[in-house]
Amino acid sequence: MKIALIAIGDELLNGRTLEKNGHWLSGFLYDNGILLNDITIIRDDEDILEKTFKDSFENYDFTIVTGGLGPTLDDKTKKILGKVFGGALKENSKAIEIVTKQYENYSRDWHRDSNKYHLIPENVEPIFNPIGLAPGLKYNEGEKYIFCAPGVPREFFGMFEEEIFPIIKSHSKFPKETLRQVTVRTRGVPEEEIFYRRCPGLWDELSAYGQVASLPQIMGIDILVKFYADEEEFNKRKSSIEKIMNSCAIAENIWSWEEGNLEDFVIREASAKNLTISFAESCTGGLTASRITNVSGASQIFLASYVTYANEAKINALKVLPKTIEENGAVSIATAKEMAAGARRSAHSDIAISFTGIAGPGGGSKEKPVGTVAIGWATKDQNDAKLYQFKGDRELLKQRFSEAGLFKLLNLIRSSGAN
Amino acid sequence: MKIALIAIGDELLNGRTLEKNGHWLSGFLYDNGILLNDITIIRDDEDILEKTFKDSFENYDFTIVTGGLGPTLDDKTKKILGKVFGGALKENSKAIEIVTKQYENYSRDWHRDSNKYHLIPENVEPIFNPIGLAPGLKYNEGEKYIFCAPGVPREFFGMFEEEIFPIIKSHSKFPKETLRQVTVRTRGVPEEEIFYRRCPGLWDELSAYGQVASLPQIMGIDILVKFYADEEEFNKRKSSIEKIMNSCAIAENIWSWEEGNLEDFVIREASAKNLTISFAESCTGGLTASRITNVSGASQIFLASYVTYANEAKINALKVLPKTIEENGAVSIATAKEMAAGARRSAHSDIAISFTGIAGPGGGSKEKPVGTVAIGWATKDQNDAKLYQFKGDRELLKQRFSEAGLFKLLNLIRSSGAN
Repeated sequence: MKIALIAIGDELLNGRTLEKNGHWLSGFLYDNGILLNDITIIRDDEDILEKTFKDSFENYDFTIVTGGLGPTLDDKTKKILGKVFGGALKENSKAIEIVTKQYENYSRDWHRDSNKYHLIPENVEPIFNPIGLAPGLKYNEGEKYIFCAPGVPREFFGMFEEEIFPIIKSHSKFPKETLRQVTVRTRGVPEEEIFYRRCPGLWDELSAYGQVASLPQIMGIDILVKFYADEEEFNKRKSSIEKIMNSCAIAENIWSWEEGNLEDFVIREASAKNLTISFAESCTGGLTASRITNVSGASQIFLASYVTYANEAKINALKVLPKTIEENGAVSIATAKEMAAGARRSAHSDIAISFTGIAGPGGGSKEKPVGTVAIGWATKDQNDAKLYQFKGDRELLKQRFSEAGLFKLLNLIRSSGAN
Repeated sequence: MKIALIAIGDELLNGRTLEKNGHWLSGFLYDNGILLNDITIIRDDEDILEKTFKDSFENYDFTIVTGGLGPTLDDKTKKILGKVFGGALKENSKAIEIVTKQYENYSRDWHRDSNKYHLIPENVEPIFNPIGLAPGLKYNEGEKYIFCAPGVPREFFGMFEEEIFPIIKSHSKFPKETLRQVTVRTRGVPEEEIFYRRCPGLWDELSAYGQVASLPQIMGIDILVKFYADEEEFNKRKSSIEKIMNSCAIAENIWSWEEGNLEDFVIREASAKNLTISFAESCTGGLTASRITNVSGASQIFLASYVTYANEAKINALKVLPKTIEENGAVSIATAKEMAAGARRSAHSDIAISFTGIAGPGGGSKEKPVGTVAIGWATKDQNDAKLYQFKGDRELLKQRFSEAGLFKLLNLIRSSGAN
């Protein structure tokens, strides 16, 4: 089964808007056992749309188009779809029914002069939009389909899941076996050191079980092995891969066998042990708290983060001693220790992690260059901190600082008894 | 001049990694007056790579390839580039020189058995990687080029800016005139209401000056008019567009005439007036502080954010009265007011903004459904709050809450005298 995504929009090709539907779609399809073949991002240009629609319909079972469905004149999808496949735009009674219902969902009335949503090319069918106002479009010849959906991500996600995917799932080529994956996540060894120095035979050994991929993350390398298999075969191969990995030279660097963000692991494992957490953030500026609160269920264990950007705030909110900052600087092991202790005390949490560093571009010195961070921790029994050096621009450094602190937090949670 | 980006990697097509190089590249090129024609994301498949390389080289002046240059076996770019254009892999003395220098930058030694970076197809040239370890590749026939660069974003950005863009700039088709854009940013009126109800002639009127685009943002609609022009012509057209917009029915909804994130405006305008700010964040969970601290220079005016997720933290860190929460709930105008007042007092800031709401998926009720947020503010003279309702999933709601609070903050900064 071959599936292509075509994303349309000048704004996706001038640095304004980051195309995110492809990322979501490929993940959704992968979780359902199929692979998205490719993503093409093109401009709002009628000739390009026409050529791309034709080529894709010829070469793929499913072509999913996003964007260009809105009410304004730079939205050309419908017109070109009509030109290539479906004939002239005509008033469509099903479209009127759909649009009227969509507008009702938003407590608004639809009229013929509101927009042109009721005009649909002959031979093309309108699709219900569960989240927004613009209806989608469907054209097919036998088991070959082209769907046009809105570019706004949550509208696309909703329409794909509810209206488009059921059709893909019932296609005769939909795979009977499931694509599965064993994930091995490592930290602390660079990619080439794993495969060229420490474990030179590892790649070939793993390849006996499926297609191997090696993916550098913000911190660490994830190794994936993918294959089509049923549950039983999957478990057999997984335990073989576990044996290989647990006896290889980087066995100690494995921190997880599961997909998911670091923050998901933190919330899940802290919840299981009933441990509460808090942060004191300077250089990370609230990023760590924001990552943690992106996870539904965070409120079970996350109490507070003190984003103390100014030194005065560190002194007032966290009771860091002015003397500590004067003598050691704000970016120091001593300050990080007091920040963590202060956050733990103020929030009454079991564990607190602190971050004080230099995210740049300014503020670095010869002794403490941009990329320096002190990460502190406080628990019932411990209060300490460690200095790290990272590379990157401001946003990447914030991420790396945050990631390093969350790894420390995860280790503290794992080594702690249940509360 | 035609430029294409090809991004390679299975991880870009299974929901694991979001492709971001295209977004950066298209913005960089746009700022330099040229348009990226399209972005194609394909799998690590030798046949697909071969076909895509051939087609692109034939149809574009410049083909930029990212990904597949690493040391592991799933990286196939070099092999296929050799197959299509350059012959067999051979030891290349320039590559050895480049790689040795790259490794020196990271205080590491390179050896022939470290990887295969020294093997390059005949007729292909290695390119220096200013940020990472894997060298890039260049092949050309006359003024037609294909470049292969690493997929890791900061390595790609560095190599593109320093090694690839100078070659594009010296190409005979590089445009002499500059592509410019007038940006009109509005808030508070939906897209179709602007163009179908309030200002039905606006699109055509603006089209007289350039190509018009309408882009829905998290909050509000941006209207862009693009055209090639010199400085003088640009200023002429800009003032015509300003006249049209300032006398149209949505004139009062224009909040900016400039590109940039809301947080950039906040930092710039607060700095100009020497106003300090702080936040009290519950439902936004540190996102607002993180956005503000992504802007270099934030430390001039941003003092602290109190991410008080638990009620106890609101009471301890912000001195919200327990009675206020008991009687009104944590998500209420009364609580938001006290949170803002508490943040302003604790941080000693000129302005404080507070956020308390329900980002979901749980926690909603009939009276206060998911998407409800109370946004509070405190200044020298004011302490108040307002209740809003938004739609979206957890992450989108956090963004919308945060955006609404930053708009309120920007308005308070704009209406405030200098400090």
